[in-house]
Amino acid sequence: MTSAPAPAARPVLTIEDVRRAAGRLAGVAVRTPLLESEAINARLGGRLLVKAEPLQRTGSFKFRGAYNTISQLEEDAVVAYSSGNHAQGVALAARLLGRRATIVMPADAPRIKLENTRALGAEVVTYDRLRESREEIGEAIVARTGAALVRPFDDPRIMAGQGTAGLEIAEQAQEMGLTIDAAAANSSGGGLIAGVGVALRASFPAIRLHCAEPAGFDDHARSLAAGERLANAPGKSSICDALMAPEPGELTFEVNRRQLESGLVVEEAQIREAMRIAFSELKIVVEPGGAVALAAALAGLLDCRGRTVAVVASGGNVDPDLFAEVLRGS
Amino acid sequence: MTSAPAPAARPVLTIEDVRRAAGRLAGVAVRTPLLESEAINARLGGRLLVKAEPLQRTGSFKFRGAYNTISQLEEDAVVAYSSGNHAQGVALAARLLGRRATIVMPADAPRIKLENTRALGAEVVTYDRLRESREEIGEAIVARTGAALVRPFDDPRIMAGQGTAGLEIAEQAQEMGLTIDAAAANSSGGGLIAGVGVALRASFPAIRLHCAEPAGFDDHARSLAAGERLANAPGKSSICDALMAPEPGELTFEVNRRQLESGLVVEEAQIREAMRIAFSELKIVVEPGGAVALAAALAGLLDCRGRTVAVVASGGNVDPDLFAEVLRGS
Repeated sequence: MTSAPAPAARPVLTIEDVRRAAGRLAGVAVRTPLLESEAINARLGGRLLVKAEPLQRTGSFKFRGAYNTISQLEEDAVVAYSSGNHAQGVALAARLLGRRATIVMPADAPRIKLENTRALGAEVVTYDRLRESREEIGEAIVARTGAALVRPFDDPRIMAGQGTAGLEIAEQAQEMGLTIDAAAANSSGGGLIAGVGVALRASFPAIRLHCAEPAGFDDHARSLAAGERLANAPGKSSICDALMAPEPGELTFEVNRRQLESGLVVEEAQIREAMRIAFSELKIVVEPGGAVALAAALAGLLDCRGRTVAVVASGGNVDPDLFAEVLRGS
Repeated sequence: MTSAPAPAARPVLTIEDVRRAAGRLAGVAVRTPLLESEAINARLGGRLLVKAEPLQRTGSFKFRGAYNTISQLEEDAVVAYSSGNHAQGVALAARLLGRRATIVMPADAPRIKLENTRALGAEVVTYDRLRESREEIGEAIVARTGAALVRPFDDPRIMAGQGTAGLEIAEQAQEMGLTIDAAAANSSGGGLIAGVGVALRASFPAIRLHCAEPAGFDDHARSLAAGERLANAPGKSSICDALMAPEPGELTFEVNRRQLESGLVVEEAQIREAMRIAFSELKIVVEPGGAVALAAALAGLLDCRGRTVAVVASGGNVDPDLFAEVLRGS
């Protein structure tokens, strides 16, 4: 990682950073609904609030951080590397802000993510996820073109943008007269839960915060337990194409190690079940990587009994064939 | 039909009726989002706003009318006949308002609708849709138990409740700075488009309003053209299990014949395509009957070019096997 460590005198991310991001995103990002279901609440014996980021522009929360970041850049071109959701977020944000975008994507990314990124006007450069380094390809484009690199997570502007989803959760819960006892969001590089956590703690100081990861990509869970950043074993794959970062970000971990209780690790079968329940009870389309925190709640890893718990359903960009297979697997 | 005709001196349904319903539903019904998609807008050359009623409590708009009606009843028990969505709406509204509910449902209703209605605490009585009369069964229960009959559409209280979806569409469009040029909602008995139309015309007097129906159940389209209520040929079936009323309601038609331009009729293939596009672009689950107005817009029957058009996606209660089959049919 080439990011400089944050100076000790100032936190990496503050609630004011998130509030300023919300100002930039007002009228641009969708204020996605906070959903709940009688059937899910009855099953869990508590109240589960689900932030529906599949309904965000480009189908995931990633648009928030991308727009917040690019709106602060002076360069007229941007480059990003992404498995797909950050790609689409950057592509749309760049188009709305009048910048050219080049996106480095794995050749085996879901077809829907590759197609949507191109449809949003970005140039897509593909690479072999197991043999090539997307960071090196991205840095080479930056060196050649002078474009600004929009990192997927390890940047306070990205974290602040993602945190606006947490600000909305807090506002929406307060409109319902609720205090949130615990919350979880999935983590790949850790930018979403970093921002969401800072935002939720500002409204609910006693909240217990968790990240959620698929088995095999539990770098945050192990890193939080160890107190230092640990990487995943290389060469693995997951149904959660969006959650395959090799290790926690340097800056995101600086935020997350202070605010998270623990990392929750879910099995693939639990993720598939969560996608089915989101379909049948919430009527939203959630991709595998977007269903991990919901899966942790439904599987009882995140205790909801007698409590009010919020989770982020972070994205809905899933190929129809895979979704059909998941629906039929019950 | 046993409803008395409305006195000529007073309209069947007024905007004040809808506003009073909104007061009763405040904090009870979900203010569902009004979604749009870059890709859909680009394809249509206009702006298409989709009211996402699958995210309503019980998965369809029917909860609105049911709650508005039952909250005005004195009886401590209610009975309803329904293919499924009205059933769930009545069941939940009755439970929230402390009434007992008996629901008469066709034995071939989607399993998810039968199960959900029972899970909401209602007693379910099934009947053979082709051989028995749900009206007669419902009236017999009323005669035996003294329960109040909650009609599926032909009641001004039901229409006013459904109209709150239209009030929200108007508010949400105005928050986005938009004037709506045209709107459509599916019709079975015609209660949804009756209420939504009255609400939208109060904010947008020049709006052009349409209902949408599946081929074979185009009783509204033919009735509007003829100026009188015409029935569908009996014995037909449709993928749109929610849209199989035999003819327009007496009171709903009194409202709709004055405010609708025409009825739009879509083929099953267009409905399936609309369900796939709602999945891929809007990330919501829409049942066949809920996708009919969206299908009319996507198929070009409802012209969106250079205009702002609103459609209601009215429900999302679809069995996973059917949804998987639709996704794989592209």
